[in-house]
Amino acid sequence: MEFISYLRQRWLSADSLVCVGLDPYPEKFPAGFSDQDGIFQFNKAIIDATHDLVCAYKPQFAHFAAVAAEDQLKKTIHYIKSQYPEIPVILDSKRGDIGSTASMYAKEAFVHYQADAVTVNPYMGVDTVAPFTEFTDKGTILLCRTSNPGAAQLQNLDVGGHPLYEEVARLAAQEWNHNNNVMLVVGATAPEEMARIRRICGDMPMLVPGIGAQGGDIAAVLGAGKAADGTGLIINSSRAVLYASSGDDFAEAARAETLSLKNEINLYR
Amino acid sequence: MEFISYLRQRWLSADSLVCVGLDPYPEKFPAGFSDQDGIFQFNKAIIDATHDLVCAYKPQFAHFAAVAAEDQLKKTIHYIKSQYPEIPVILDSKRGDIGSTASMYAKEAFVHYQADAVTVNPYMGVDTVAPFTEFTDKGTILLCRTSNPGAAQLQNLDVGGHPLYEEVARLAAQEWNHNNNVMLVVGATAPEEMARIRRICGDMPMLVPGIGAQGGDIAAVLGAGKAADGTGLIINSSRAVLYASSGDDFAEAARAETLSLKNEINLYR
Repeated sequence: MEFISYLRQRWLSADSLVCVGLDPYPEKFPAGFSDQDGIFQFNKAIIDATHDLVCAYKPQFAHFAAVAAEDQLKKTIHYIKSQYPEIPVILDSKRGDIGSTASMYAKEAFVHYQADAVTVNPYMGVDTVAPFTEFTDKGTILLCRTSNPGAAQLQNLDVGGHPLYEEVARLAAQEWNHNNNVMLVVGATAPEEMARIRRICGDMPMLVPGIGAQGGDIAAVLGAGKAADGTGLIINSSRAVLYASSGDDFAEAARAETLSLKNEINLYR
Repeated sequence: MEFISYLRQRWLSADSLVCVGLDPYPEKFPAGFSDQDGIFQFNKAIIDATHDLVCAYKPQFAHFAAVAAEDQLKKTIHYIKSQYPEIPVILDSKRGDIGSTASMYAKEAFVHYQADAVTVNPYMGVDTVAPFTEFTDKGTILLCRTSNPGAAQLQNLDVGGHPLYEEVARLAAQEWNHNNNVMLVVGATAPEEMARIRRICGDMPMLVPGIGAQGGDIAAVLGAGKAADGTGLIINSSRAVLYASSGDDFAEAARAETLSLKNEINLYR
C-alpha cells in the first residue's frame, strides 16, 4: 500500500496524530536493562504500552549508531512490523547525498531496516530526493522548517520574496511529488511558518517534532497545521513519553503521557 | 593534534592533494572476495597499494550501511589508523540534526568509528554544526556547494545579493569556526563557485568531490581553489581509482591511477 494511504488509515483507526519517537538514552533507562539488548527491550516495553495510541513510531538513527546498536534498531523495527503491522515506522536519519549514494541510503532505510518512511535533507536538491521517492510504496519526509533554535539561520533566508523553507515546500509539492509519497518536516516551534507551508502543500502530511522538551504548543500547531479533515499531522513526542518516569513504572507512565497527548491533540482537531 | 595541522602536515609529507574515496560496490570487486569481510579486504588492498600517494582516505558511510557492513567500515578505519597513522580519515556521512542528536552523530563518527573528520549538512543551522566542532581535534566538513547535477536548485538561490552556498561559506568562515576545525565541501564540477568560496573562506581547506566520473576538470579546480601555498584542497577520487581494473591487478591499477592523478594535480599547484 502507498505510504500516505497507510498513514491515513492509521490516523483514522487509532484516532490519533501522536507519533512516539524512539530516542533511546541508555543512561536514562530504569535499572535492569542489560547491555546486550537493553535498548531493544526498553523500546519493546514502550511499544507494547503505547501501540494502540499512536499513528506511527519514529526511531532516531543516531541514538542507535552512537552506541553501535544498529542491530537493535533493526530488531525494534522488525518487532513493530511483525507485532503491529498496522503502524507505520519512520526512520529518522536525515540522509542526503549525490544520486548514486542516496540510492544506497534508500536501500539502507527501506530494504535493510524495512522502515516505511525516512527523513531526508533536501540541501543537495532533486537528485538527493529522487532515489528515495522511487520507492513508490515508501514515504520520503523532507526537512523543510525544522524545530531547532538555529533552524531559521538558513531556512528563513529570503530567496526572492519568500523564505528558503517555502521554496522547499513548493518544490516538494509541485516538482518532486510525482509518486505522491513526499512529506515535510515542520517543527512545532514555528507555527507561523507551519501555516504558510500548509497553504503551499495542500493536505501533504507533515511530521512535527518539537512539542514537549523543545517548547512547541499543541493548540498553535493544530491551528496552523491540521489538514481540512482534521488529520495531516504526525506529531512526535520522544523524551516526554520515554522518560515520563525513571522507575519501574516507566511503561505505564509512557502510556499515560501518550494518552494525555493524544487527547489534548484531539481537542483541537 | 588539530585536524587542520594534521592534514597540512600530510599534504606536505606526501606531496599530494589526492584523497581516495572508499565507496565499496561489492558487485564491482574482482573474484575472490568473500561475503564475510570482502569489503574490508578490498579496502585493505586499495589502502596498501596507495597509502604513500594520498593526503587522506574518505570512506562513504552509505556503501557500508546499505549492506549492513558497519563492522567493516570500523575495521577499515581502524586499519588505516593503526598501519598508517599519518593519514587522516574523513567519514563521509553527511550528518545533520538538532543539537542533542547531532551530539550522537558526532559520537558515532569520532568515538565509535574513530574518524578524524566528518561531513555535515548545514541546512539546520548552527546548532547542527556546533556539536561536531566541539571536538576540537577533529574536523567538521560542511556541505557548501556540492558536485551533483541538482546542487544548484537550492544552493545557488539568491539570498540577498549572493547565493545560498556563499552564505554557508561566510557562516563557516566568520561565525562557526571558533575552534579552527571547519572546512567545506565544494564540488569540482563548479569551479566558478569554488573561486568565489575561496575568496570568502581564506585558506580554509576544501574537500573536492566530482572529478573523474562526475566530470570535474583538474586544471580548473586548481586554478579556482588552491590556497596561496599550493595546498588547500582535498581532491577526492573514488570509482576511477577503486575500479581502475576489474581483474586481479586491481590494486596495481588503483595505484597507477592514484599516482597519475597526484602528478596531474601537482602540475597545477
